[in-house]
Amino acid sequence: MSALESSVSAPSVSSRVSIEDFSNYTMRMQFKKKNITDDIFQQFEFEPQVIMEFEGDVNQAALEWLIAKLQAPRIDLGAELLVFSDYREHNKETVLYIGATLDRLLIGAEEMKIPKIYKDGSLRELCLSDITQFEKSDNLLDFLTSAEKQKVIIKGIENIRATEDDHYIPGYPKYTLYPGKSIIKKYLSRHIITNLFPLHEQEKLKLIARKWYTLKNYFKPQPIDSIQEYFGVKIALYFSFLGMYTISLIPPALIGIIYFFFPWQSVYKEATFALFNVIWSTVFLEGWKRYCNSLCFKWGTIESSMSYYSFEEPRADYYGVISRNPVTGQLEPEYPKWKRVLKFYLVSIPIITFCLTIAFLLMLAYFWGEFWMKKNAPQNLGIISKMYSLIPAVMYAITIGILNSIYRQIAVKLNKFENHRLPSSYENHLILKHVLFDFVNCFICLFYVAFYLQDRELLKTFLGTILITQQILGQLNEAMVPFLFMRRRQKQVDDALKKSEDTLQENSIKGNLTGSQSVSTSYKKQAALEGMMDRFNGSNDDYLELYIQFGYVYLFSSAFPLAALWALINNFIEIRTDAFKLCRVFQRPFAESANNIGAWQQAFEVVGIISVITNCALIGMDPEVQKLLPSTLTPVNMVLIFVATEHIVLAIKASIALLIPDIPKSVSLQLAKQEYAAKMALKRQRLRDAAAKKRALIEAWKRRPVSGSDDTM
Amino acid sequence: MSALESSVSAPSVSSRVSIEDFSNYTMRMQFKKKNITDDIFQQFEFEPQVIMEFEGDVNQAALEWLIAKLQAPRIDLGAELLVFSDYREHNKETVLYIGATLDRLLIGAEEMKIPKIYKDGSLRELCLSDITQFEKSDNLLDFLTSAEKQKVIIKGIENIRATEDDHYIPGYPKYTLYPGKSIIKKYLSRHIITNLFPLHEQEKLKLIARKWYTLKNYFKPQPIDSIQEYFGVKIALYFSFLGMYTISLIPPALIGIIYFFFPWQSVYKEATFALFNVIWSTVFLEGWKRYCNSLCFKWGTIESSMSYYSFEEPRADYYGVISRNPVTGQLEPEYPKWKRVLKFYLVSIPIITFCLTIAFLLMLAYFWGEFWMKKNAPQNLGIISKMYSLIPAVMYAITIGILNSIYRQIAVKLNKFENHRLPSSYENHLILKHVLFDFVNCFICLFYVAFYLQDRELLKTFLGTILITQQILGQLNEAMVPFLFMRRRQKQVDDALKKSEDTLQENSIKGNLTGSQSVSTSYKKQAALEGMMDRFNGSNDDYLELYIQFGYVYLFSSAFPLAALWALINNFIEIRTDAFKLCRVFQRPFAESANNIGAWQQAFEVVGIISVITNCALIGMDPEVQKLLPSTLTPVNMVLIFVATEHIVLAIKASIALLIPDIPKSVSLQLAKQEYAAKMALKRQRLRDAAAKKRALIEAWKRRPVSGSDDTM
Repeated sequence: MSALESSVSAPSVSSRVSIEDFSNYTMRMQFKKKNITDDIFQQFEFEPQVIMEFEGDVNQAALEWLIAKLQAPRIDLGAELLVFSDYREHNKETVLYIGATLDRLLIGAEEMKIPKIYKDGSLRELCLSDITQFEKSDNLLDFLTSAEKQKVIIKGIENIRATEDDHYIPGYPKYTLYPGKSIIKKYLSRHIITNLFPLHEQEKLKLIARKWYTLKNYFKPQPIDSIQEYFGVKIALYFSFLGMYTISLIPPALIGIIYFFFPWQSVYKEATFALFNVIWSTVFLEGWKRYCNSLCFKWGTIESSMSYYSFEEPRADYYGVISRNPVTGQLEPEYPKWKRVLKFYLVSIPIITFCLTIAFLLMLAYFWGEFWMKKNAPQNLGIISKMYSLIPAVMYAITIGILNSIYRQIAVKLNKFENHRLPSSYENHLILKHVLFDFVNCFICLFYVAFYLQDRELLKTFLGTILITQQILGQLNEAMVPFLFMRRRQKQVDDALKKSEDTLQENSIKGNLTGSQSVSTSYKKQAALEGMMDRFNGSNDDYLELYIQFGYVYLFSSAFPLAALWALINNFIEIRTDAFKLCRVFQRPFAESANNIGAWQQAFEVVGIISVITNCALIGMDPEVQKLLPSTLTPVNMVLIFVATEHIVLAIKASIALLIPDIPKSVSLQLAKQEYAAKMALKRQRLRDAAAKKRALIEAWKRRPVSGSDDTM
Repeated sequence: MSALESSVSAPSVSSRVSIEDFSNYTMRMQFKKKNITDDIFQQFEFEPQVIMEFEGDVNQAALEWLIAKLQAPRIDLGAELLVFSDYREHNKETVLYIGATLDRLLIGAEEMKIPKIYKDGSLRELCLSDITQFEKSDNLLDFLTSAEKQKVIIKGIENIRATEDDHYIPGYPKYTLYPGKSIIKKYLSRHIITNLFPLHEQEKLKLIARKWYTLKNYFKPQPIDSIQEYFGVKIALYFSFLGMYTISLIPPALIGIIYFFFPWQSVYKEATFALFNVIWSTVFLEGWKRYCNSLCFKWGTIESSMSYYSFEEPRADYYGVISRNPVTGQLEPEYPKWKRVLKFYLVSIPIITFCLTIAFLLMLAYFWGEFWMKKNAPQNLGIISKMYSLIPAVMYAITIGILNSIYRQIAVKLNKFENHRLPSSYENHLILKHVLFDFVNCFICLFYVAFYLQDRELLKTFLGTILITQQILGQLNEAMVPFLFMRRRQKQVDDALKKSEDTLQENSIKGNLTGSQSVSTSYKKQAALEGMMDRFNGSNDDYLELYIQFGYVYLFSSAFPLAALWALINNFIEIRTDAFKLCRVFQRPFAESANNIGAWQQAFEVVGIISVITNCALIGMDPEVQKLLPSTLTPVNMVLIFVATEHIVLAIKASIALLIPDIPKSVSLQLAKQEYAAKMALKRQRLRDAAAKKRALIEAWKRRPVSGSDDTM
């Protein structure tokens, strides 16, 4: 690691030496007038916020080049961060502990327009010259949350870009760069950096965990604001959605229980229940939009998607010919759209169709197997014949499970192959593929039973069995496995750390930290432990699970009214399992901003529409219901009545969606007030300017030379 | 009129005297550096832009109060306009000719952020300090179009507001005011001002008219940009829509002709034609959205509705208890929402239902009358019996026409009764009512024939007769009547003016015009003539006509393929009739901004959806088509096949609407570029500021006292 010092060129060394003092000084200057004690800029303990782990045999030149860029002042296009580098003997890995001075964090937060609570209770973009007017500004050290600090740091890291002189990563001539390319993305996509994650804050995490998933608080609402503060808006929105969806299941579950325990045999029963359900699903989805918008208003992200074109950067894995972006004029890879379209139509669609056909054939094989078994199974052998008859079902269930996981991998592969430019379009296409695969895989046999075999009893049995088994297996899988894993990992880390504890002291003073500010052993331990955890891959899998469940509950609700109850129980546990996983099993994710749940909203709405069709068809096919209608009706007219009903229900759904405003009145009023205030301030400013100008001109007019010469007129 | 001078209080007189000189001077100062000859600010002829006519017995105090406000400088909360007042002997009316100095117009245009073309070809908000960089700035007198000048003036007039001291209109103690109320709106709603309109610009109008509707240019595209420049975006959008809709009718018309002249009897024929039509209507409506957005981009209005809450002012007729607006904090009438909701559900809906029931009963009466006539008419009387059999149809057609016009009035009355606060919500509710009334009135008999009587032949006859008669009558009504009216009116004005010509000289020097700047007789003549014209009431009636026609073409297209051809011919003429009416029959309307066609887009889309249902039903009911399907199909399965088809077609429509982006690629690219440039400029600015700050601080740091005293650290 001695090469580190030599890699830092003379000018940056000098600036590096003084940077801490200097920036402390600038901050002091800035806050002096506001009577903020400037001690906090002088004495602080180095808090590593972000951990960066390198591959075992990383080239030293590449490492030192990156460290220099991380430390260089921003005027020299660096990130101006504090870096402590460490070498772990036990696994030969280099790890960087990255933090920042308080002033760097505050200035970065201001530039990122992070919303903070103003003393009048409203949310405003952070403004340093006005910082004393923000809540909690008494103690600047705790003014920014750890999530915000990490956001500032990761933004700084991502913003380190290749200059005109950087043609490749030092030590890796094959990994070429072009001006403007984010260097860290190259390191990540080439796996030079194997791990980049923010550290947990043990105390806060414990507080949140206690309120969130401990047995004592099992029946209390989720601490959703703390979750947002700690994990960011995107994750908080998933848990809010899960929570609201769970609550929305209570009415259908209650009705389901009543219908189950008081089996008053009316044919109206199923019809009214189905009607209630399809309307209710719309009310829930519209209600969610409102709730989501009020949350995003509270968290200050509601207006973040107002622009026509978001300046998202290309994904790290995006490849193409380097050319100029037509909007920004900067160099970046460009992949022709027609190639992507061709790939989509000529590769993705055929493969998807093939996969779905296999799922369909598999289902046919299952029904054929069941039929064959019934015919050929040994009769009258008691338990053995029963076992025999179960073989096809068990095999089908297993194959479905295997197919599901294979298909998820295929979806990811295809999506990568399509080479989407923006992270958002990548994500939306991935969601679309997942939804398609899972929908067909899970529901095709139900559709087959319901509408081809038209076997009502079989449908009920099927629905009940699949829903309950899937949920029990899912819970076991989600809750137990990670828990056991975590236990084992903790032990592994303890062992590894014990082995290398002696070496911890050796390489302590590295990077741009002064002697007194080194990384404490507890941080090192924590970093090692969390580095071994799995990366949190976003909430898409969790959404997918809810999505399939939503389908089970609403698509065939007239056939199996108890579905909502089972889903309710499951989700109640699911909230806590997901919370546990997030807090204890995964690495802490970087806080991400969001203002809705993205393509999932549309995915759920489509199931809502399909459920109208399926339920109307189910009810229409019910012989009990048919008996109820006047016998003078021809079958054709009977069908037409159900078709008409379906259209009316769809129209009702559409009008509900139209009539419920997406933004609650109180929120839109607040937004309007803010906008109006901004507009008025601008107007006042303009009038003041104009008046001043006029006054000055009147003065000049009065003092004008009275002669008629040309240059004065 | 001698009271005029006395009504102007001392301070405003003094400011009034110097205002012209002063403002000329300010403009000169502003433009001096840019080498713009300042002569144009000194010598200009007074151009009246806006005419204001008062009721015959207007109270002089009210008149003079308003004139004073119109003339007062803006610092004194006036409008700073040039006003010339005139008294017409022949009808005892007072009329104000309102104009403005060039500087007032330019400053007003800058404040209204009027988009103008920059020298690099892009569209930018007018910025006076940069005016030489805008196109056509060589001659500032012609820099603003007359429509823009009128916009600035009417905005100035509307912005004259009651102050804390104004409790009622002088001379009308009953017409109370509250602080912040637009005074002109009170004058208008109380009919003290009977007419407020901008003057035509004869030469420009002639140029536009020649290109637009003269026989020579009948087959050329409309001069849509000139229309926008002269009449504003809202009207230009109507004509663009009409033009695009007409062109979109060409493919269905061609197919209709082919089917008509080559009556190759295939049952597929109608089905494919209907399928083509329903898909085509979606493509047209989506294509219109794109075209509309590219027009609005070209005209600079595309981004005008980006805010959550528009600060539209309440309608002039809106009434309620004066209270504070929760957003602006200003006084304005407030009408409780629950009252409006109650009115809507307890009054509007019952009345609308009653009206629609009458339309339905009338239709039944017609069919009963036809049946009775057929049974009881004198037989074998040749022409007389034929006449007899026509009686019910003629009577029905007449009643429908009468009902239509009654219903339109009812719609307006109900809408006013509901007391909507914003002009936009008033308009949307009015469109909804019009659409509902006209849809039921025009189509109920067609639905009855098609789906209850199921008489295909009758449907064809009906559709053809109604469509063609309605269009011929409509054209006559729209084209001939106004033309004759206009002729007569021109003569009346000539007579009236001749009578009062002598008096024109008497009261010439009024208002704040100097002697040399009076209103020429030609302007007075023009104002008198245009004052007698009808007010242009917006394009809603024209849209309604197109809407009904759209229904005739697409709802039953499988039954009457020639409908598109008739509509095409009609619209081709309609463009020119509407253009003629706008140019010659109506008062010039104030240019209004818009960025879409409002609720009409949705109204057309709903008809598109309904047309899928009606066409699928029509085809499904066709015995020819039914014969084509395998005879093994049960009737129920046959119906199910058509229902499935309908769902698939609806899904296709939805995906087309989803897949075609609303904003064309080129436009979104331009928008993104603009936004990116703005963002980068801001960022550069911020970096420059930060760098400057840092440099200054480094200097201070270098020169810092080295002593450790407290106040320097």
